[in-house]
Amino acid sequence: MRFKSQQQLEEWIKRAKGSSPSLPNSLGGAQQPPPVNPAIQRRILGVDTALRCTGWGMIDIRGNNMKAVDCGVIKNPPKDKVSGCLRCLAGGIREIIQLYHPDIAVLEGAFYFANVHTAMILGSARGAVISVLAEHNIPVYEYAPRRIKQAVCGNGNASKEQVAIMVANYLDIKTDALALDSTDALSMAICHAYELTTAGGLTLPPEL
Amino acid sequence: MRFKSQQQLEEWIKRAKGSSPSLPNSLGGAQQPPPVNPAIQRRILGVDTALRCTGWGMIDIRGNNMKAVDCGVIKNPPKDKVSGCLRCLAGGIREIIQLYHPDIAVLEGAFYFANVHTAMILGSARGAVISVLAEHNIPVYEYAPRRIKQAVCGNGNASKEQVAIMVANYLDIKTDALALDSTDALSMAICHAYELTTAGGLTLPPEL
Repeated sequence: MRFKSQQQLEEWIKRAKGSSPSLPNSLGGAQQPPPVNPAIQRRILGVDTALRCTGWGMIDIRGNNMKAVDCGVIKNPPKDKVSGCLRCLAGGIREIIQLYHPDIAVLEGAFYFANVHTAMILGSARGAVISVLAEHNIPVYEYAPRRIKQAVCGNGNASKEQVAIMVANYLDIKTDALALDSTDALSMAICHAYELTTAGGLTLPPEL
Repeated sequence: MRFKSQQQLEEWIKRAKGSSPSLPNSLGGAQQPPPVNPAIQRRILGVDTALRCTGWGMIDIRGNNMKAVDCGVIKNPPKDKVSGCLRCLAGGIREIIQLYHPDIAVLEGAFYFANVHTAMILGSARGAVISVLAEHNIPVYEYAPRRIKQAVCGNGNASKEQVAIMVANYLDIKTDALALDSTDALSMAICHAYELTTAGGLTLPPEL
């Protein structure tokens, strides 16, 4: 989707915000958003896992207020060995945990692949990340990519750029200079924040 | 393959031993085994990675002499969460490393899968194991299952039971009470020992 004018972009954002959270529809088309529990306070880490470039983003939620904490990418040179990449990835996640002490981590559920080799490589990266999170007793949740985009943009087929625009709006930050992998990671945290704060967490997926 | 008598078993072992290491054939059918470098001393850890039951086995090599150090399995209850399994797996491998200080680790290369979901799960287990090995600067190698069986049994289609018999013979240990996952892991270490000590390591696969 391309926007011809600023007005068109703003209208799209308004429409997308109106359609999120996606929860009311999933509970049978209620028109009013469900009540929010103001007592819920969490620090959520989203991780967009990959072997070469892993995005991460951390947000704080307090009731229905969200605030960005930090975000970034863990990059590995294209020619590094697989074992070296996994070491850097696990080490990077460990550093982030020790620095920010998240309560919850969210990953993108990877259900579709071009081939088993890709699944194997992505699986290795996920294994390195999940084992470090579990070592620190941080519960891990995963959401399908469509569900995250639906919750954040109101459209399960939204592009990475559209996700970045919505993340900027929700968190009131500038995302122009951020890597799309890190805005994707922030969108995962936002998605979980919605699932957690609405409907008493009834639609939360099981812990990984 | 089933053996009708002890004599038949012994003949099979003799034949299999005669056909290993597989190296002479791969270098063009030389009849004599290549010279062994007596200065090579290594402690090799083989890991048969899986989410629920990971076998491991450690051997010491000194020239062409091999000695079993220890072996076992890292088991996770069938109903444990994936994150809990990966934590136990990574923690178990870390303990083994701190106890025995291996120089090299060997995994089974996983190239064929029933489906991408299986590839993803096995990939996660491998990622957790490899990241811990890399964290301790232990080089990781992988061999295709057929290559391991060929090196140890002289038959790429050997069963796990046949592999266990050959492992018992090579290392002069009793494998009856050992889990087949741990004898599989020992066979990986034996396979790498052959590749390392014969032909100056020219046929070693690249580090993972």
